[in-house]
Amino acid sequence: MHKESAPSAAELEALLATARTFVREVLVPVESQLLHGAWAQNEPVLAQLREQARALGLWAPFLPASHGGRDLPLDAYARLSEVLGWTPFGHYVCNCQAPDVGNMELLLQFGTDDQKAQFLEPLTRGEIRSCFAMTEPEHAGSNPVMMSTRAVREGNEFVITGHKWFTSSADGASFAVVMAVTDPDEARKHFRASQILVPLPTPGYTLVRNIAVMGESGGGWASHAEVRFDGVRVPVTNVLGLQGHGFALAQERLGPGRIHHCMRWIGICERAFDLMCRRAVERELAPGDVLANKQQVQFWIADSRIEIHAARLMVMDAATRMAHHGQEAAREEIAYIKVFVANTLQRVLDRAIQAHGALGMTDDTPLAWWYRHERAARIYDGADEVHRTVIARRALKPYLPPRTPRE
Amino acid sequence: MHKESAPSAAELEALLATARTFVREVLVPVESQLLHGAWAQNEPVLAQLREQARALGLWAPFLPASHGGRDLPLDAYARLSEVLGWTPFGHYVCNCQAPDVGNMELLLQFGTDDQKAQFLEPLTRGEIRSCFAMTEPEHAGSNPVMMSTRAVREGNEFVITGHKWFTSSADGASFAVVMAVTDPDEARKHFRASQILVPLPTPGYTLVRNIAVMGESGGGWASHAEVRFDGVRVPVTNVLGLQGHGFALAQERLGPGRIHHCMRWIGICERAFDLMCRRAVERELAPGDVLANKQQVQFWIADSRIEIHAARLMVMDAATRMAHHGQEAAREEIAYIKVFVANTLQRVLDRAIQAHGALGMTDDTPLAWWYRHERAARIYDGADEVHRTVIARRALKPYLPPRTPRE
Amino acid sequence: MHKESAPSAAELEALLATARTFVREVLVPVESQLLHGAWAQNEPVLAQLREQARALGLWAPFLPASHGGRDLPLDAYARLSEVLGWTPFGHYVCNCQAPDVGNMELLLQFGTDDQKAQFLEPLTRGEIRSCFAMTEPEHAGSNPVMMSTRAVREGNEFVITGHKWFTSSADGASFAVVMAVTDPDEARKHFRASQILVPLPTPGYTLVRNIAVMGESGGGWASHAEVRFDGVRVPVTNVLGLQGHGFALAQERLGPGRIHHCMRWIGICERAFDLMCRRAVERELAPGDVLANKQQVQFWIADSRIEIHAARLMVMDAATRMAHHGQEAAREEIAYIKVFVANTLQRVLDRAIQAHGALGMTDDTPLAWWYRHERAARIYDGADEVHRTVIARRALKPYLPPRTPRE
Amino acid sequence: MHKESAPSAAELEALLATARTFVREVLVPVESQLLHGAWAQNEPVLAQLREQARALGLWAPFLPASHGGRDLPLDAYARLSEVLGWTPFGHYVCNCQAPDVGNMELLLQFGTDDQKAQFLEPLTRGEIRSCFAMTEPEHAGSNPVMMSTRAVREGNEFVITGHKWFTSSADGASFAVVMAVTDPDEARKHFRASQILVPLPTPGYTLVRNIAVMGESGGGWASHAEVRFDGVRVPVTNVLGLQGHGFALAQERLGPGRIHHCMRWIGICERAFDLMCRRAVERELAPGDVLANKQQVQFWIADSRIEIHAARLMVMDAATRMAHHGQEAAREEIAYIKVFVANTLQRVLDRAIQAHGALGMTDDTPLAWWYRHERAARIYDGADEVHRTVIARRALKPYLPPRTPRE
Repeated sequence: MHKESAPSAAELEALLATARTFVREVLVPVESQLLHGAWAQNEPVLAQLREQARALGLWAPFLPASHGGRDLPLDAYARLSEVLGWTPFGHYVCNCQAPDVGNMELLLQFGTDDQKAQFLEPLTRGEIRSCFAMTEPEHAGSNPVMMSTRAVREGNEFVITGHKWFTSSADGASFAVVMAVTDPDEARKHFRASQILVPLPTPGYTLVRNIAVMGESGGGWASHAEVRFDGVRVPVTNVLGLQGHGFALAQERLGPGRIHHCMRWIGICERAFDLMCRRAVERELAPGDVLANKQQVQFWIADSRIEIHAARLMVMDAATRMAHHGQEAAREEIAYIKVFVANTLQRVLDRAIQAHGALGMTDDTPLAWWYRHERAARIYDGADEVHRTVIARRALKPYLPPRTPRE
Repeated sequence: MHKESAPSAAELEALLATARTFVREVLVPVESQLLHGAWAQNEPVLAQLREQARALGLWAPFLPASHGGRDLPLDAYARLSEVLGWTPFGHYVCNCQAPDVGNMELLLQFGTDDQKAQFLEPLTRGEIRSCFAMTEPEHAGSNPVMMSTRAVREGNEFVITGHKWFTSSADGASFAVVMAVTDPDEARKHFRASQILVPLPTPGYTLVRNIAVMGESGGGWASHAEVRFDGVRVPVTNVLGLQGHGFALAQERLGPGRIHHCMRWIGICERAFDLMCRRAVERELAPGDVLANKQQVQFWIADSRIEIHAARLMVMDAATRMAHHGQEAAREEIAYIKVFVANTLQRVLDRAIQAHGALGMTDDTPLAWWYRHERAARIYDGADEVHRTVIARRALKPYLPPRTPRE
Repeated sequence: MHKESAPSAAELEALLATARTFVREVLVPVESQLLHGAWAQNEPVLAQLREQARALGLWAPFLPASHGGRDLPLDAYARLSEVLGWTPFGHYVCNCQAPDVGNMELLLQFGTDDQKAQFLEPLTRGEIRSCFAMTEPEHAGSNPVMMSTRAVREGNEFVITGHKWFTSSADGASFAVVMAVTDPDEARKHFRASQILVPLPTPGYTLVRNIAVMGESGGGWASHAEVRFDGVRVPVTNVLGLQGHGFALAQERLGPGRIHHCMRWIGICERAFDLMCRRAVERELAPGDVLANKQQVQFWIADSRIEIHAARLMVMDAATRMAHHGQEAAREEIAYIKVFVANTLQRVLDRAIQAHGALGMTDDTPLAWWYRHERAARIYDGADEVHRTVIARRALKPYLPPRTPRE
Repeated sequence: MHKESAPSAAELEALLATARTFVREVLVPVESQLLHGAWAQNEPVLAQLREQARALGLWAPFLPASHGGRDLPLDAYARLSEVLGWTPFGHYVCNCQAPDVGNMELLLQFGTDDQKAQFLEPLTRGEIRSCFAMTEPEHAGSNPVMMSTRAVREGNEFVITGHKWFTSSADGASFAVVMAVTDPDEARKHFRASQILVPLPTPGYTLVRNIAVMGESGGGWASHAEVRFDGVRVPVTNVLGLQGHGFALAQERLGPGRIHHCMRWIGICERAFDLMCRRAVERELAPGDVLANKQQVQFWIADSRIEIHAARLMVMDAATRMAHHGQEAAREEIAYIKVFVANTLQRVLDRAIQAHGALGMTDDTPLAWWYRHERAARIYDGADEVHRTVIARRALKPYLPPRTPRE
């Protein structure tokens, strides 16, 4: 997976420095306004920031140069992603936000020329947004083959019927990638579903609601929708990759996707750490006696530093492994970081809030926003429990020749 | 502190049964609507529910019968409070919600007849609401003597100037109890401030904002205000209790206040536990295989059960001790529960959310609401760190004759 | 289960005061010598101490007065047991040590007159010791019905063959209570085994070794033996209680046994707490600056105090419930304390050792001894995992009408 | 710090494979015998094993080839050290055990030719053993400048008087490196002490006792002595490095020393992990149902795997940094690993013991030995609290221009 046009080490450092300055001097000052504004008000502001990002060479950095990106390999992108994670809209502004980034990667790798022209190109240019409709409210995400959504072939069309939620950013999206069972009679249960490109809006499609998540239903990109497909028709050529390979593609997507999240979480951790340290030296408990003098606060800082350091080494190790040896070779390491970094994130945010006292509860810092929305980090893309089960099974395999443990 | 007209054991059990039925059959069904509705819409609904509570004998149960209550001693009230804590508006509906409950208790104990007539009576009847303005954004709550708000005597008036925040429920309140320094030159620094009754609104008073807390600025009773007093004038007779005794009164208030919160938190724990168990037996991971079969889920349930049991015994012990021997005798036990129950609450909510998966992140259950708003439990009324310091000092005292440890 | 001759509240307080003085002034000074001496050297010293305990009215306090005891109900005994737990030989000196206490209780309740005369009487007088042979190295203790030891009836005798370990105090014991399968064909698998009294030594019986446990094989009462029964013969009248009721008796034994352990563990916690506080005020980090000034040490002290308080309330609650309503009524509460107190114990000891630094690693305090030997608290009499499973099952039962979760 | 004669990558892999085979096939089979045997019995067995190690090219691998070693740079040695850590005598057998390894490193770097001839050469050949006398029972190790031992110059001699403990391996050592105050009037308090080479035994020197540590006083290399120097005389030429530079040398020693310990701990973690997995697949809870089927056991395995992975990445990062950029550049990373790996070690051992049930308490596996002796990992070479304070101070420095927090 060597990327010919990837930047040199010096170019990467320069890019990171550019990103760091952009984040701190441009994005952080508008962060609070964006976090608490409505999407309709935010969108034009963000569009302008996107132009600045593009001008600085920060646009879609994971994409090939031919698509306007910087061709960063995963380990280099990991470092940039941490920088962008410092502020909630960092990735969006650089057009490398979920779920679009995953859709772009899949289309790049598996899309037909027509699919690329119709769906990928406007996405890479930032003209449209997209979503990914996989999770169903009726079924546990830990068992992806339990899926009710069906795509039935009629002539040259698939007719899609199903109920999805946590279809993030569906509000305003121009297309969805929909997981649906196309081959219900296939013996191998992981080969029953396909990923299908569905232009939006379209007859039979309903956005039921932007789900209220931790008190906010949000809007536009910053939302999680419940949607229904009730006889939605698309041409059979809208299948992404091979029919029946929906889960294989989902795996392709989730591996880098988890690394992307982990990178971003480390950026959040570093920001929370920065806020905690600032608070520690500024907040007086008595005249001349600051919070930083308290051993408990010092130990929150020390433990956070240790854990963030461990998290970063693990993420860089997994990213490097995946960049050089492919996703399968990094599967176990990805499971490690999905659990470790999500839990580190939760602990660091919790400590930073406690160090802020009442201020930590308010929206006057971004801590409370992350505290509530990133609680999901331990749930999505495989809950802690799912990954720990995977890790244990792989660890036990050499000891357990014929059998495997029940879950 | 024996209460003559307190109900017998059998009467208490009957009252608890009444409350339990009322909460589950009347309040829970409207809970979601109330949690996510605007205050203006909620208020009439709540007014109607209050009438039902009154009719059922659940009104202001901690008040003397002469003020329309049930005269419950603290340990009996603890048990009722747990029942009401099962739903976020339980206490409000029974007119025993913070901060009004604390204001009523102080006025009952320390108010003059005039103060009672003007402030207490309409409060006990539920005709008005009140607030308590103590915390200042510029100063650490862990050091209450650091306070900038001043009340300067001019003739028969106090002129109050200061900046407060987390003045909960100020929005719509008919009066505030304001902590202000009245005696700045007093040598004993705990005798410099007074609690002063301030009718609202009044010239010089501004409600700056309902602070956005964990994404919600709320409104009415369900809000936390930032307020300013800029030359607000009140008669000197509006001092509550003795001038200079503001901190002594705050201590009087905080002791039972902490027990009230702990009782309520146990109610929340029990509700989260109930939701977790329901989810565990209902959610299928595969056909016929439910979440409750997973040992991790079983252990979340078991550990929650153990910790809630411990929490309840500790709260009942502290409440009984305070009911029989007064607040000073229960001071250490109150510090224990403030730390233990707040942390138990956070853990139980976290487990219940994890057991709900994506659903736990949504506002479709009350878990996410408590998760974000009750994060404050480890901060207000003395952060964990403050109470642990108090406990350690008392524990070390017998070992350390002349000196005391630095914090 | 009211005990007629139980002491009054005032008598109990006097007894506790006597015990406290005896423990601190007599037992603690010889504690180190006893902990690190060989059993043969310890035994005469202990015999003398036992005479003192008897003279002070501390002998076998749980026994009826008719057997030389004080007839303490379980909740009163709990309080005494905590006092005795302060030093490792406290219970032994008062003849209420495991495993003899369990054997005495079973013989009292289920023994025939002959069995009482032969086995119980000398035990209550402290003339002999006994052991309990249940655990087998080949089978998991969490599944007691997996048991290989067999007692086959031949005429008026049982012929016992089996392999046991963790037969605590077998070294020097005058009899064993042996769990053996007597009815292998019984359909109800919990009714296949019996408890059989086996005088020791006896032909066919071998004490294979005193197992080296955490570096010490110990000796006499302070040891855990691996033993073999190879055709050991006893009269059929040596069955304790009904044939086939071995597990029922084991349950009878384990309920109070777990409470006894928990009581003792709280005593250990209090001692560790005392040592930690002493160390905190004495150890200088710099001239005039002691360990107690460190916030981390203060928080170890505070958290330990909170947890010990919770533990004591829970144990007293379970003991009171069992004393008044019997073991079945307290079954769940016993599971709570078995988990909670064992884990509290481990944490408190760990903190006390850390506060002692290098000294904590040495045998110059009893902390290291408890640290290694009480690690077993989370394993014996039902590992944490077993009790948490029991608790979860009972909690889920009301939610899960027909099915039960798999473990 | 490039080492000319260091092995190539392929040579290193071959060396690791050799070591792995040697450890598993030769050392593990005699491990139990060595762990529980007396030193006098062990020594000849170990001498024979050392010959085998030497023949396999595993001798003193950190030493230059000129001293019989393999010239491994720190990061390569880290990997070997993990392999040797798998069994308690792995390092001893390869002559890279503490405290000799630290003494060899100091002598190599700072010794005069005479000192090297007298002390280093026989040590590198494994003919003698040595010890390091720094810690004093009267003073906290966290404040090394609090030191009572004095070396007073009289003519060409130093006369040493002092009291030390945890002088590991003093029993049978041929010399000690003694930290003593030589310049009490020096203004800079870190320049008051020197390291002095003291041949043993010598007049005035007493080995008071091998301290009983966690139940074992051990002997020979496997012991921790309390010693007294009462007017011990050595020539002034026995000062190691510059007079007054004792603390500087101690820092030189402790940096790599901490990495050595961390490497070894990871080896222990991997062994405990291996034992836990074996146990999980072998232990039946019911016929055909093994421990590995339990989700809790799976999660112990998964969490251990994640934490060991993090620990290894952190140690390799610190070792590589130190190998390439020197100790000062790695100071913070060394503090991270000292805390993280020591705590990981304790958790992994605790889980492995719990998974073994009663067997985990016995000396039938090495788990119990490590559980008790490696409890010290969180105490020696800087307790957790010391390193966390260092980390916090460095983290806060950029935020706190002029001041520093009190501890």
